[in-house]
Amino acid sequence: MTAELDPVIHPASRLRIMTTLVAAGEGKAMPFALLAERLDMTPGNLSVHLTKLETAGYVRIDKTFRGRKPATYAVLTHAGGLAFARYLTALKTLLDPVREGVGDNDATN
Amino acid sequence: MTAELDPVIHPASRLRIMTTLVAAGEGKAMPFALLAERLDMTPGNLSVHLTKLETAGYVRIDKTFRGRKPATYAVLTHAGGLAFARYLTALKTLLDPVREGVGDNDATN
Repeated sequence: MTAELDPVIHPASRLRIMTTLVAAGEGKAMPFALLAERLDMTPGNLSVHLTKLETAGYVRIDKTFRGRKPATYAVLTHAGGLAFARYLTALKTLLDPVREGVGDNDATN
Repeated sequence: MTAELDPVIHPASRLRIMTTLVAAGEGKAMPFALLAERLDMTPGNLSVHLTKLETAGYVRIDKTFRGRKPATYAVLTHAGGLAFARYLTALKTLLDPVREGVGDNDATN
């Protein structure tokens, strides 16, 4: 049986959050508002998913002030980067048997 | 914003079922018991997920008899094959920004 797909990362919303943070880079502070806008997620929905990622230690939430305005940032942790790499490897292993046959060749039209 | 990941296919259990049926091939009848064993899923759990895939038209459930014993088979439909191809394309698009940086290179150790 193939390695399990990390249930913290796999759900679509959290996968999209992690992909955005991994693309930004480990330790990079991503403004909450920018993340919500880019992922077209409501602040409430984004907050729920970020909390699950934070609980797992994959993301750190930094709350600070810019001038007098509160500002929240999401930061990919080293553990988060490693967990995402394991997730990608497990996903690739799962999809290997079908990736050639399906995807971007004519069979899909 | 990237194409949505088909919510019928993306959940891990159903993704593993679809990957197994796509690897077997469209129209190929996969015995229920073999699928349950291969995916290490209880019959009840497999049945719930197959019903969702059947409702979406991605899988056909054939019930027949082998001798006097009832036998159930899961068959990937043409629509299921196309949906899975669209899913893979959307998944690849989502993961493209991070696939080079993470995965099977040294950065993950």
